[in-house]
Amino acid sequence: MIKIGIVGGTGYTGVELLRLLATHPQAQIVAITSRKEDGLPVADMYPSLRGHLDIAFSSPDKAKLTECDVVFFATPHGVAMAQAPELLAAGVKVIDLAADFRLKDVNQFEKWYGIPHSCTDVLTEAVYGLPELNRAAIKTARVIGNPGCYPTTMQLGFYPLLKAGVIDAGNLIADCKSGVSGAGRKAEISLLFTEAGDNFKAYSVSGHRHHPETVEQLQYVTDDKIGLLFTPHLVPMIRGMHSTLYGRLNREISNEHLQALFVDAYKDEPFVDVMPFASHPETRSTRASNMLRLALHRPNNGNTVIVLVVQDNLVKGSAGQAVQCMNIMFDLDERTGLQHVAVLP
Amino acid sequence: MIKIGIVGGTGYTGVELLRLLATHPQAQIVAITSRKEDGLPVADMYPSLRGHLDIAFSSPDKAKLTECDVVFFATPHGVAMAQAPELLAAGVKVIDLAADFRLKDVNQFEKWYGIPHSCTDVLTEAVYGLPELNRAAIKTARVIGNPGCYPTTMQLGFYPLLKAGVIDAGNLIADCKSGVSGAGRKAEISLLFTEAGDNFKAYSVSGHRHHPETVEQLQYVTDDKIGLLFTPHLVPMIRGMHSTLYGRLNREISNEHLQALFVDAYKDEPFVDVMPFASHPETRSTRASNMLRLALHRPNNGNTVIVLVVQDNLVKGSAGQAVQCMNIMFDLDERTGLQHVAVLP
Amino acid sequence: MIKIGIVGGTGYTGVELLRLLATHPQAQIVAITSRKEDGLPVADMYPSLRGHLDIAFSSPDKAKLTECDVVFFATPHGVAMAQAPELLAAGVKVIDLAADFRLKDVNQFEKWYGIPHSCTDVLTEAVYGLPELNRAAIKTARVIGNPGCYPTTMQLGFYPLLKAGVIDAGNLIADCKSGVSGAGRKAEISLLFTEAGDNFKAYSVSGHRHHPETVEQLQYVTDDKIGLLFTPHLVPMIRGMHSTLYGRLNREISNEHLQALFVDAYKDEPFVDVMPFASHPETRSTRASNMLRLALHRPNNGNTVIVLVVQDNLVKGSAGQAVQCMNIMFDLDERTGLQHVAVLP
Amino acid sequence: MIKIGIVGGTGYTGVELLRLLATHPQAQIVAITSRKEDGLPVADMYPSLRGHLDIAFSSPDKAKLTECDVVFFATPHGVAMAQAPELLAAGVKVIDLAADFRLKDVNQFEKWYGIPHSCTDVLTEAVYGLPELNRAAIKTARVIGNPGCYPTTMQLGFYPLLKAGVIDAGNLIADCKSGVSGAGRKAEISLLFTEAGDNFKAYSVSGHRHHPETVEQLQYVTDDKIGLLFTPHLVPMIRGMHSTLYGRLNREISNEHLQALFVDAYKDEPFVDVMPFASHPETRSTRASNMLRLALHRPNNGNTVIVLVVQDNLVKGSAGQAVQCMNIMFDLDERTGLQHVAVLP
Repeated sequence: MIKIGIVGGTGYTGVELLRLLATHPQAQIVAITSRKEDGLPVADMYPSLRGHLDIAFSSPDKAKLTECDVVFFATPHGVAMAQAPELLAAGVKVIDLAADFRLKDVNQFEKWYGIPHSCTDVLTEAVYGLPELNRAAIKTARVIGNPGCYPTTMQLGFYPLLKAGVIDAGNLIADCKSGVSGAGRKAEISLLFTEAGDNFKAYSVSGHRHHPETVEQLQYVTDDKIGLLFTPHLVPMIRGMHSTLYGRLNREISNEHLQALFVDAYKDEPFVDVMPFASHPETRSTRASNMLRLALHRPNNGNTVIVLVVQDNLVKGSAGQAVQCMNIMFDLDERTGLQHVAVLP
Repeated sequence: MIKIGIVGGTGYTGVELLRLLATHPQAQIVAITSRKEDGLPVADMYPSLRGHLDIAFSSPDKAKLTECDVVFFATPHGVAMAQAPELLAAGVKVIDLAADFRLKDVNQFEKWYGIPHSCTDVLTEAVYGLPELNRAAIKTARVIGNPGCYPTTMQLGFYPLLKAGVIDAGNLIADCKSGVSGAGRKAEISLLFTEAGDNFKAYSVSGHRHHPETVEQLQYVTDDKIGLLFTPHLVPMIRGMHSTLYGRLNREISNEHLQALFVDAYKDEPFVDVMPFASHPETRSTRASNMLRLALHRPNNGNTVIVLVVQDNLVKGSAGQAVQCMNIMFDLDERTGLQHVAVLP
Repeated sequence: MIKIGIVGGTGYTGVELLRLLATHPQAQIVAITSRKEDGLPVADMYPSLRGHLDIAFSSPDKAKLTECDVVFFATPHGVAMAQAPELLAAGVKVIDLAADFRLKDVNQFEKWYGIPHSCTDVLTEAVYGLPELNRAAIKTARVIGNPGCYPTTMQLGFYPLLKAGVIDAGNLIADCKSGVSGAGRKAEISLLFTEAGDNFKAYSVSGHRHHPETVEQLQYVTDDKIGLLFTPHLVPMIRGMHSTLYGRLNREISNEHLQALFVDAYKDEPFVDVMPFASHPETRSTRASNMLRLALHRPNNGNTVIVLVVQDNLVKGSAGQAVQCMNIMFDLDERTGLQHVAVLP
Repeated sequence: MIKIGIVGGTGYTGVELLRLLATHPQAQIVAITSRKEDGLPVADMYPSLRGHLDIAFSSPDKAKLTECDVVFFATPHGVAMAQAPELLAAGVKVIDLAADFRLKDVNQFEKWYGIPHSCTDVLTEAVYGLPELNRAAIKTARVIGNPGCYPTTMQLGFYPLLKAGVIDAGNLIADCKSGVSGAGRKAEISLLFTEAGDNFKAYSVSGHRHHPETVEQLQYVTDDKIGLLFTPHLVPMIRGMHSTLYGRLNREISNEHLQALFVDAYKDEPFVDVMPFASHPETRSTRASNMLRLALHRPNNGNTVIVLVVQDNLVKGSAGQAVQCMNIMFDLDERTGLQHVAVLP
């Protein structure tokens, strides 16, 4: 059994980690920290866990995190980097679901997150936790920067096209739509049912933190300079993310060939489902599961290829991907504990 | 034109007042106060008002409320009673959408709202603003305590039955369901889209502030002691309230007679719609309108009569009712500015 | 492995059965019938099953249902009774998720479902599949009438009170609220997103098919005549059911005693969670899980006890309960394949 | 008073017309036809109209449409063209909310709608009813083809840019999102609450009927060949449409200049609201109102301009626009009966 600690289990990525780990056959949750909720049984905050998890929040000073095999950080940005060095020194692996170890470019990190990076040495060795593109490095990593939700869809959607060099890297458009849980469990007016419900809007169109992360990673795939336009929108649904990706083809290529690029790229991937050409994947086909689904379109056989990508932002877009990384790091079958069928309807 | 001031225009009852008054042909909004948003154009906070309302929030000290004909308080409990005496002294009428002037029983007020009542003399003259039961008093009132949303449905639903003495006053059950806007525009976790959406629950089953208000008012209708069980629930919808009322018949009575009690009681009411016996009114049939609709049922012709009551909690349940009171107080046709057709779908 | 056939896998109870059985360690789905979809891979209709279920619908004449160990009917009323005799003769067990084997009173069946009952002998031996009240009979049953969704909540909520004789059996009120999936996957105007969304209404208040079923079963618990008022409502959510039950206490009893009645009744039940007194269970705390949760209230310590009951109408209210019955019938641990943590948020 | 007939008042564009016309000071609804609902009071189908509209559906043969001043067709495609000639001969004006008179190119019409066009002479004189671009022609028109919902947003969003020639006409992308009411009031599985709720997907990505209409109209604005990629998506909300438009700038231009193009284009328009640069308009800011709002963005001051456009698909996207056309045709103030403040929240 893997001994697991969770820092910050009160938010949505935290409770989703708990949902997944509570039934993971190799996982033993030994500590969940929350300064504010010290002593409160986790199942009192989240009744969905009653009968599944018999543990209470403990304040960080009491939790013996250094006795864990791995510690997940489901915290605001900045927490993981403060605690990672001590854990690593004690031989504990670290998986951060926030952004502390996502961006290799420290300037970009500090620009977008507004705080100085306190352990750039750890950052140097940290591995970006996107298994499909980075599996080997994850296997031996001590520190994982778990990808953002939007970047997961953009990378897996553009990757086969950029790898094959068939689209113009400098002219990518990602029109992305996220359910409200992507914003976290925060008491903000704009996230109220009465504000976000029966409503649709774009936000942060002039700039969003997931842009530099995506560009940095996509740049590893191609020598051409990445130019990405990323437009996030808020959808009145709880979970789910849909990215509509536009790439300009730079050569003659058949639709069969395009489809083959994706089928080949992901044929051994347990959590990427390449649907038939011209399908319309629905977000709910991934609800509460770790599967990401995608499909290609090419209107009028023109020079633009459209990739439709869906996932559950809290699973493949966050907690599920983190557990997938853990499975790889601890030499388990990558699918362990992640075999949920999507909940539909 | 009636010169109108609004204290606290940033919440949902406030913006609903603005929606209604912006197109009211006799209303001129001359001041909207908000300490926090001083100087901010109202339409910047609520883009729905762009082009309809060209006024900015002003801090209370700058707003010349004493020059108004009437001031609405769309504020938390306790604000209206602090300012009412000065306004009344200046000849300004007051309509409070909160609870300061609803409960005649000061002990009940202080028990349920947790603050002492600071102007019990004003409370004494205040009129409970439910036009259907209290029109004459409203006409000459200087101060209105505008009813709560739940109490409006419970009173109008039980009134004809209690008046006629055909149900047991001591054994009333009101199983009520409200859209989320009833909780106001507050940054609270439990009101998030991700918490209240795709979910249903009861709340405050052991006691809710609208209980004493309803009991106090219903007691005016009958000499028998009112006994009321009131169970509020939260519905994943933005606007709308549905009350399912159960009364025990205490005598032989035909369904036609029951229906006639309601038809007679409300035949001249512009904002109460008695639907055919055994109808199922929908909340959306009142969305954004000031209409309250109700229908009677009597399963198996047994000894329980069920009254289904629907309204828009922000209109007939709050701001619309307040404007209806204003119309009465200023000798306008009661329907002025309140003739909206419900928005369906 | 249990060889399983499913008749009618295209509706919501069907796809929910598939979700649960696809990951059930002892289940092998060998046939799914659909006359209309013959040959269509199940995962083409429900992409959520892609990668989990590699089987196609087959027309009833081709499906070798008599070679199964058990056949589930997720069909409209009337189908199971037409096919059950042949299956039973072949030694196949039958679990009907519709109403063919729920009502022992054939007159009531024919009155409410409008069709004659074609195999009353099978009906005589059929067992009502509510494990908490009927486990021993289920263990040896050949035919199960799986309970309706509403009746499950009403029975489990009223049972401990009626058993102990502390409430008036003739005066039960059940004010129930269901998510839209309870109506099934039918192309009806009233179930459209644009009709059922942002809306709330009661329906079938004058009479609903789940009333006679509930009364028949509750009558087994007490010698007093059951009188039940049942008011169903439609909630704008996909899954979830909340029943608010009112019982009139007929004797002095402490709240501790009331709570103990429930704790004792369900202390060994894996899928009934008695929450602390005066809790407010949320439907989402059971979403996609087989757990039913309930809590007691007693406003003002008066003579009415309120039981709040929540479940996922498609799981404990239907497909999950059916699988629970199967586990019992095949001597498996009752929890096998049903250990999902509720999906929250 | 304008005497008005409505053909096909049972769908969503029909009931929205009724909502708007019921309070329009110059409108008198004299006939509503429905073969199926002959004799049924309109308010029995739509209780929201109780007290506002006292008229029944009548079968087409009984309705004296030729005595009207104007007849609106809120029908499936093909109905208006069958009846228009007779009405025009009788001196009645025709406004078709469907597609019969939208496309000047008959081949395109027949390709996309799958039926032959039966009155191409009427089509020749028909006027495309987008007041902002076509006001003079509407004023004298006898027949109006009322624009589709998506095309309204795409045209008003791209127009100032194409007119000024600052973007590449051959490389337009419109990523559009619509509430479910855009699909009409049809009993289809995919539109159920349980299918469309808590879900997001693209549809018709390979081709949609609103594409040729938009291209045809945009081509009138520029000599350059229009190339448009149009990707529609379905949003789990009832009303509302959000189009995210991408245009490639073909010259140096300041953001102030871009903004000025829009401000100038629409400065006299009562129903187009150009919001401040870099705003994020919300669909709900137009809910139930005839206002269309838009805002410009230019990420990183790069060579792509993004236009965010929102409207209520049933109002400015359909029935409201039709009434706006009627006002113009009958020399009324264009805003008559269309001054509703958007319903928020």
